[in-house]
Amino acid sequence: MRVALVAPLAEAVPPKLYGGTERVVSWLAEELTRQGHRATLFASAESCTAAELVACAPRSLRLAGIRDHVGSTLSMLREVRRRADDFDVIHFHVDLLPNALFQDIADKCLTTLHGRLDLPDAIPLYEAYPEMPLVSISRAQRKPMPKSVNWLANIGHGLPREVCPFNAKGGDYLAFLGRISPEKRPDRAIEIAKRAGVKLKIAAKVDAADTKYFKSTIEPMLDHPLIEFIGEIDEGQKSGFLGNARALLFPIDWPEPFGLVMIEAMSAGTPVVAWRGGSVPEVMTDGVTGVVVSSLDEAVDAVQTVSNMSRAGVRAEFERRFTAEKMAKAYVRAYRRLLGRRAVLARRPAGAARETLDPAPQAPLEASGPCVVWPRDGVNEPARNGRLASHP
Amino acid sequence: MRVALVAPLAEAVPPKLYGGTERVVSWLAEELTRQGHRATLFASAESCTAAELVACAPRSLRLAGIRDHVGSTLSMLREVRRRADDFDVIHFHVDLLPNALFQDIADKCLTTLHGRLDLPDAIPLYEAYPEMPLVSISRAQRKPMPKSVNWLANIGHGLPREVCPFNAKGGDYLAFLGRISPEKRPDRAIEIAKRAGVKLKIAAKVDAADTKYFKSTIEPMLDHPLIEFIGEIDEGQKSGFLGNARALLFPIDWPEPFGLVMIEAMSAGTPVVAWRGGSVPEVMTDGVTGVVVSSLDEAVDAVQTVSNMSRAGVRAEFERRFTAEKMAKAYVRAYRRLLGRRAVLARRPAGAARETLDPAPQAPLEASGPCVVWPRDGVNEPARNGRLASHP
Repeated sequence: MRVALVAPLAEAVPPKLYGGTERVVSWLAEELTRQGHRATLFASAESCTAAELVACAPRSLRLAGIRDHVGSTLSMLREVRRRADDFDVIHFHVDLLPNALFQDIADKCLTTLHGRLDLPDAIPLYEAYPEMPLVSISRAQRKPMPKSVNWLANIGHGLPREVCPFNAKGGDYLAFLGRISPEKRPDRAIEIAKRAGVKLKIAAKVDAADTKYFKSTIEPMLDHPLIEFIGEIDEGQKSGFLGNARALLFPIDWPEPFGLVMIEAMSAGTPVVAWRGGSVPEVMTDGVTGVVVSSLDEAVDAVQTVSNMSRAGVRAEFERRFTAEKMAKAYVRAYRRLLGRRAVLARRPAGAARETLDPAPQAPLEASGPCVVWPRDGVNEPARNGRLASHP
Repeated sequence: MRVALVAPLAEAVPPKLYGGTERVVSWLAEELTRQGHRATLFASAESCTAAELVACAPRSLRLAGIRDHVGSTLSMLREVRRRADDFDVIHFHVDLLPNALFQDIADKCLTTLHGRLDLPDAIPLYEAYPEMPLVSISRAQRKPMPKSVNWLANIGHGLPREVCPFNAKGGDYLAFLGRISPEKRPDRAIEIAKRAGVKLKIAAKVDAADTKYFKSTIEPMLDHPLIEFIGEIDEGQKSGFLGNARALLFPIDWPEPFGLVMIEAMSAGTPVVAWRGGSVPEVMTDGVTGVVVSSLDEAVDAVQTVSNMSRAGVRAEFERRFTAEKMAKAYVRAYRRLLGRRAVLARRPAGAARETLDPAPQAPLEASGPCVVWPRDGVNEPARNGRLASHP
């Protein structure tokens, strides 16, 4: 299949430093290529991929010091549009602009939404341009979205098997990995560690926006023999940091859309103590990859529980649900479903083609093993509300 | 003529508080209506206009707390697009998104660029979508733009005659009006006033981003018998503040795209001492509406010079060049030129229609009195570089 992958220009693909979306797009591009598909990656020129690269910005926008990404993204989208006929499917990872620009060929497009969707800013766009087939990365992520949008699938992220290698032994400390920010709740992590009497290592960067929070709230909590603040670590250090831990603490206080770090820990065999919220109950297999908790008391208990969990069992569950291979296969099934819908539309007499859409499109579905795609649900909204007919 | 005016959703039209663009769009809508055209204003629901209002957001985005305006703007643009056939001309005031969305009907569209264009962020967009006919608000504003863009006209802003009524007498103080920020150089204004030995009144808001600059640089300069810091004033107080001044100081240090406050002062009959830079030499009639200076010494001398200038002469020059009526007429000429180009294209055989464009389009041009439009220059770029042919 000929697939265009359209990545954010903020960072290279894969990113040199941060960039969750760019990492996922990179893994998907490599896997699609490995599985024999012809992937074309639209991304910044510093990107590195086995797919065909179409360089759409000379440098990643962050390094180029460009703060407003709309102009560069629209420029890239023009190039994607120019080549649209070269692809069976165009897969966007740049949020909402494609909805407005590709509505007349939305039936060969899909957009994976990588961020939280509970802010009011984007809602008018999704209401105005409901054609674009959307992929959520967790069911929880969908909650704030208008009913009219066109969900194609729900596909969790996947991680290449080798990125965070399995560590059978683990270690003696609890790990906190991410940003120091109020919604990540490093304060809760510190509290859990102190009450459980277990060492905590915090590997986290402090963004300029969070300096005040760090100084006022977190720094005063660090002066304790059990707490070690490591600061920022790079991609290479991450797998060791996670693999050598007894457990990852993930005590979030926001509607996490996915939470990549949970599956990175699982990949290393390290169980997770995660706060119920957002995607957590979907990503976690409670009792197998760790424990889902709702209070400090539960979290302190969970630190003991996870210490007795089978690290091999955690890794096995990762292999079953969250490899990049599984993710890519789930996407290929979604692409095929999209093409199936298209074929159904094309067989209709002209004029009627856009008026209705078979509520059970005859797409060739791959045999689906246990994986992170929930293929049926949400597919049919455009048929029921007829929104696909609302092209201007 | 049936004209759609597409305003930013950030503020109401006219704005309750700040919003230079929204004020100009409001004045244009009122004037077009008064001149017998059928104007339709796409704007937030709190707007108030003699034109037909199409409410595209329930509240202005600033009041609604929406920080990313892309979603709401794209939603509005879909509505504009839906109604495109109802208009002879669609006139955008929302920067770059329409370039990407209206490229196939760019020949009935134009965009007035209201901001500075010397930041790299938007350049890729203008390079990728060069069809949109653009209107600059000063020649200086055009400098950083790629050669390929499609300039239709250069039209300075206009102000309704009654907004800042003529004050024949003036007063004894120098006025500084705007924001306290390094590029507006209130420090220069203070220096000029002290050295000229003339009272200075500073009416300016201090944005959160500029608090540090205010505290560290400006506040220490305020403790002087000649300097009075008034703080923020509203629209109603502005005309009195300007009209009662001896002169306006406009000692800017950035590529000012237009500088509305200069013509507001002129309207009140108050001459301006303005620093050479950006639009200043174009907006000022040096020696008539004030003095254009390049150094502190020149500025101090100019304070004496402008005290002897005819306030009636300043107002007369404002009337000659910068009324809202003149601005609206200049825009109507630009609309007609656009329609003339369209007619030329339509007469070409199919296929050839988009290939070339007559370098001197036979648009019916109104008799042009002295005003702020420079109609010929820049019209022909699309013919010379053939970019109008580059639709995908």
